[in-house]
Amino acid sequence: LKAFVLRAPYGIESLAIAEVPRPGALGPGQVRVAVRAASINYRDLLFVKNVLNRGGNEIPGSDGAGEVIEAAPDVWRVKVGDRVALTFHPDWLAGEWQMSPNAGGRGGTIPGVLCEEVVVHQQEAVVLPSYMSFAEGAALPCAAVTAWHALCAAKPLQPGMTVLLQGAGGVSVFALQFAKLFGARVIMTTSSAERAQRLKQLGAHETVDYRAVPEWQTAVRELTSGRGADLTIEVGGAQTINQSLAATRMGGRLALVGMLTGVPNVTSSMFSAGVDITPGRVGSRADLEALIRAIAFHQVHPVIDTTYPFAKLAEALQHLQSGQHIGKIAIEF
Amino acid sequence: LKAFVLRAPYGIESLAIAEVPRPGALGPGQVRVAVRAASINYRDLLFVKNVLNRGGNEIPGSDGAGEVIEAAPDVWRVKVGDRVALTFHPDWLAGEWQMSPNAGGRGGTIPGVLCEEVVVHQQEAVVLPSYMSFAEGAALPCAAVTAWHALCAAKPLQPGMTVLLQGAGGVSVFALQFAKLFGARVIMTTSSAERAQRLKQLGAHETVDYRAVPEWQTAVRELTSGRGADLTIEVGGAQTINQSLAATRMGGRLALVGMLTGVPNVTSSMFSAGVDITPGRVGSRADLEALIRAIAFHQVHPVIDTTYPFAKLAEALQHLQSGQHIGKIAIEF
Amino acid sequence: LKAFVLRAPYGIESLAIAEVPRPGALGPGQVRVAVRAASINYRDLLFVKNVLNRGGNEIPGSDGAGEVIEAAPDVWRVKVGDRVALTFHPDWLAGEWQMSPNAGGRGGTIPGVLCEEVVVHQQEAVVLPSYMSFAEGAALPCAAVTAWHALCAAKPLQPGMTVLLQGAGGVSVFALQFAKLFGARVIMTTSSAERAQRLKQLGAHETVDYRAVPEWQTAVRELTSGRGADLTIEVGGAQTINQSLAATRMGGRLALVGMLTGVPNVTSSMFSAGVDITPGRVGSRADLEALIRAIAFHQVHPVIDTTYPFAKLAEALQHLQSGQHIGKIAIEF
Amino acid sequence: LKAFVLRAPYGIESLAIAEVPRPGALGPGQVRVAVRAASINYRDLLFVKNVLNRGGNEIPGSDGAGEVIEAAPDVWRVKVGDRVALTFHPDWLAGEWQMSPNAGGRGGTIPGVLCEEVVVHQQEAVVLPSYMSFAEGAALPCAAVTAWHALCAAKPLQPGMTVLLQGAGGVSVFALQFAKLFGARVIMTTSSAERAQRLKQLGAHETVDYRAVPEWQTAVRELTSGRGADLTIEVGGAQTINQSLAATRMGGRLALVGMLTGVPNVTSSMFSAGVDITPGRVGSRADLEALIRAIAFHQVHPVIDTTYPFAKLAEALQHLQSGQHIGKIAIEF
Repeated sequence: LKAFVLRAPYGIESLAIAEVPRPGALGPGQVRVAVRAASINYRDLLFVKNVLNRGGNEIPGSDGAGEVIEAAPDVWRVKVGDRVALTFHPDWLAGEWQMSPNAGGRGGTIPGVLCEEVVVHQQEAVVLPSYMSFAEGAALPCAAVTAWHALCAAKPLQPGMTVLLQGAGGVSVFALQFAKLFGARVIMTTSSAERAQRLKQLGAHETVDYRAVPEWQTAVRELTSGRGADLTIEVGGAQTINQSLAATRMGGRLALVGMLTGVPNVTSSMFSAGVDITPGRVGSRADLEALIRAIAFHQVHPVIDTTYPFAKLAEALQHLQSGQHIGKIAIEF
Repeated sequence: LKAFVLRAPYGIESLAIAEVPRPGALGPGQVRVAVRAASINYRDLLFVKNVLNRGGNEIPGSDGAGEVIEAAPDVWRVKVGDRVALTFHPDWLAGEWQMSPNAGGRGGTIPGVLCEEVVVHQQEAVVLPSYMSFAEGAALPCAAVTAWHALCAAKPLQPGMTVLLQGAGGVSVFALQFAKLFGARVIMTTSSAERAQRLKQLGAHETVDYRAVPEWQTAVRELTSGRGADLTIEVGGAQTINQSLAATRMGGRLALVGMLTGVPNVTSSMFSAGVDITPGRVGSRADLEALIRAIAFHQVHPVIDTTYPFAKLAEALQHLQSGQHIGKIAIEF
Repeated sequence: LKAFVLRAPYGIESLAIAEVPRPGALGPGQVRVAVRAASINYRDLLFVKNVLNRGGNEIPGSDGAGEVIEAAPDVWRVKVGDRVALTFHPDWLAGEWQMSPNAGGRGGTIPGVLCEEVVVHQQEAVVLPSYMSFAEGAALPCAAVTAWHALCAAKPLQPGMTVLLQGAGGVSVFALQFAKLFGARVIMTTSSAERAQRLKQLGAHETVDYRAVPEWQTAVRELTSGRGADLTIEVGGAQTINQSLAATRMGGRLALVGMLTGVPNVTSSMFSAGVDITPGRVGSRADLEALIRAIAFHQVHPVIDTTYPFAKLAEALQHLQSGQHIGKIAIEF
Repeated sequence: LKAFVLRAPYGIESLAIAEVPRPGALGPGQVRVAVRAASINYRDLLFVKNVLNRGGNEIPGSDGAGEVIEAAPDVWRVKVGDRVALTFHPDWLAGEWQMSPNAGGRGGTIPGVLCEEVVVHQQEAVVLPSYMSFAEGAALPCAAVTAWHALCAAKPLQPGMTVLLQGAGGVSVFALQFAKLFGARVIMTTSSAERAQRLKQLGAHETVDYRAVPEWQTAVRELTSGRGADLTIEVGGAQTINQSLAATRMGGRLALVGMLTGVPNVTSSMFSAGVDITPGRVGSRADLEALIRAIAFHQVHPVIDTTYPFAKLAEALQHLQSGQHIGKIAIEF
């Protein structure tokens, strides 16, 4: 069985394909899934640099999809031949986040999907809509769930609310697609006219070029008649969070999903903004099922920027690191 | 000042235009509104038949809109010239329903909008979007708020959820329009192919003709892969509720909004359905503001079947009673 | 392995102890539990009369507790020697109720706890507080979870709210104990001065004797200054529900948990009451964990009316059927 | 009419009693309240130092109670002779926080209660329980509502949950009293053995002396088996918030109520803690009514450290500034 395995010295170049033992006979409730595609996230970069908490796990990959090739006799959620996505948190099925030894997530403290085959409990598998490719479906468990959870888990999202998104990474583009389904208004910050144009094609109602308009929080206020966004999904971290808080309306919410530009230093804005701050923790299986129901009904396709073959994982990670992508980068097996 | 005033013997034909005293000088926080349009509801029929609890109030009309023609000096929510809708519940601004002597609502225990001029507290006035006519705006406070509250007040509505609606009255058509904004799937029962076609034009995803398919709850189950609707908005009452419960999924919800066909007799279905039942109470000002934010962003126009002049209220009520309308019937002043 | 097994002709007297095969080797995530105590519920009477949906399952018992005597190597939630309660719904861990082939519950469509040993997934086991006996812990999964879920799952319960409870069965007495922890006011209907006294000893603030006061809903209104209860937990069914609705305040809630007196016929009260009606579905593992956290902190003991030895199950069921108990009836192995 | 009026140069000593004009005739819905007591808060210190946003308002006092001495003919919420507390936010009656020109609150941008008489709309008056003195009732609108809102507005509080409180100021002591009513466990940080003893007398389950134990967040973790508090009410600000986040469980919540030790600098802890952060905004009238219902049922008395006569306001503020009080400092008229 081939898998990518992290070894010292760490870094993208240290990732190598190795032969790992095939998981043995299935136990009750278990299914065997041949992984057909993975999708990479910023946390995979942290993993290969050995800065993510990964316990003893050496196999990265949080976002993946595949085909059920074997199912224990008592399995009822899926059957052989089903195309499934694999949940990020094995033990968080629904409701409030909960502590578990597996809370580090797939591709964190538990083995990831960059492996030809995985055995999981049926509770960790969710059937994909038939119109979706494996590469598209592989984007859902971590990136799409993070976006969905940030959008609507803490408070309901309603048509006409304003959502502020940053950049064009996987989570932001999913959040754009989902927010549109809810009938929300979407404002996105971006770094160039070309990217702005692409985001508008994808449905963004307005964009603000943060290079042309360094005080973009003011632009957001102006676009909202001075009121501010109802919800901001923060992926920037150090270089954006204080502006994000200033762009969010009092009584609104900021979902703290990423810190691409480093650990922030939040000062008075946290007090004066009057904004709820909710941390990112990906989301539950119920979130994954809810977002699949939503996009399946509307036949939405995840935005895949580029697809790399399994052997080209390092190139894919370098592409991700460059920040030049829009949406997700996929790995096909 | 002209107003419609109910006098014995009751009934549509007993409604007559009378001269009523003009409200005097404004107190703090008050505004004077020249009513420009009203919109009639089933409850207006109950009012004129004297079966609605109306206290001593003689002026009907729950749904209305007009122009602010005078405002007390301390008023800040609106200004002279603003086009406003008037809330149904003067004291229910937000949050949970609350008891008040005014809980009977405008056009119930408090004087209605079928009067040329009303004086209200500024908290009872909500500014209308500029693209909307008075006749359209007049449809919002009671019918649209009822639909919005039923859709999303008790639990969030999400894209891909299935909503089951009955007929093509004011509440059902608003619920259709709103559910579409949320990205929900809408199934509507109706009585003819012509009406089905019109509902599809308005955006219904599926319709079920309850005359052709008396066991329409089975059809709804089939359309949802056996699962049932996530939410049913019940307007029928006696002749529909047990079927509605059977068409709703276990764990779903039935919003009890109307009883056009009489008081129901609910038996075992209430137990076996496993469905939350939430009563209709129109909704709060926050509901009205939220729905206006939603439709204003999407430039949705309320569906006005017919507009009658003020003097033709009796004809309008007869039209409503016939059940042949789709959407709302308006009265222009 | 000894178990109670239901065979035709059905009825309490048809239940017999039989030898059943010992479950084999544990699979991943599984634990073997030696059942030490069970606790019986009204649904066990329906089971033995063959009117409960039980699929092909022949072993009753929804409420049980025991000792972990073996655990698969990967088990982390519990360890050998732990004293555990077994959840009613194997697949409903948290959040909203969800459909599953196991939704019929333990002692329903899946084998019950009236068996010396059961093998379950670790997700179905919750550790008991050390101060609690097995007989007490056995009362939690079905009866206590039903009470907790009815009290606070749909809406938060707050100090000073009024809860109306009926009789002194397992669910009502748990609801009393829990409501007291929340600081709520508890009014209970009961059938005699003796039972009223016992309920007051257990903490009920007021009792209403429904034999002495057939219009007990009026008494509840009087006790609440005309307002009505904020929450009513309905266990009576046919003979009580319309009065229960009349005793509940507009804007309040009725949790539909039982129908001891038969299937009700709900008429106009459902409309006029303005009350949310939420169905009973026992509850999730999160409910079980939350209630254990609550009672463990306050060292609350479940109220056990009588404890019978395993062999005397028939007598225990007859005792339950008589309705003469207060709290729960336990079976010790 | 006598009132305290702030004039330059600012500071406690600049506050002086002045004669202000008596409010004129009542308008519709208005009531005249003779203020009988006020209660001071940290924000009053900011007011007198002219660092609080107060618009043009010169009269401080956010917490107050009095007697209705006149009511407009249409007033129904209260009557002459009623003892009432006055809400902090005139326009936030229930539900989500909302923007209004009056959002600065009583004793902020709108005239405060340190005035012998105020005229308010009936919606701003809430009747006090009869067992409570004016000095006690005066403590409710700002301090008690802040504590209640922080405890249970964003998420329900349940028995057995752990609440971490800081010090013995007005908000913290109210939070202690309320959390006890909910059956929660309360851990409080404090600065001496004497204060610890007093807090235990008031019901705190555990105290941690932050002078003796500078790493008090570790002590809180130990008291909660490593888990952390479910909810922390942060009043300290700069010198406490990072430790507070470290003392709160992942998935828990921190309510950001005060910053007595200055504006904080939150760094990585905000990300790593996985904690919801909800801002303080006092609360709605519904919060005030809910807390009164709770304490009235349990006959809880607000903790008044010292009561000063009207003329001794400066001394009272100096007492508050010293931080030597426990609970609230009252002003009687």
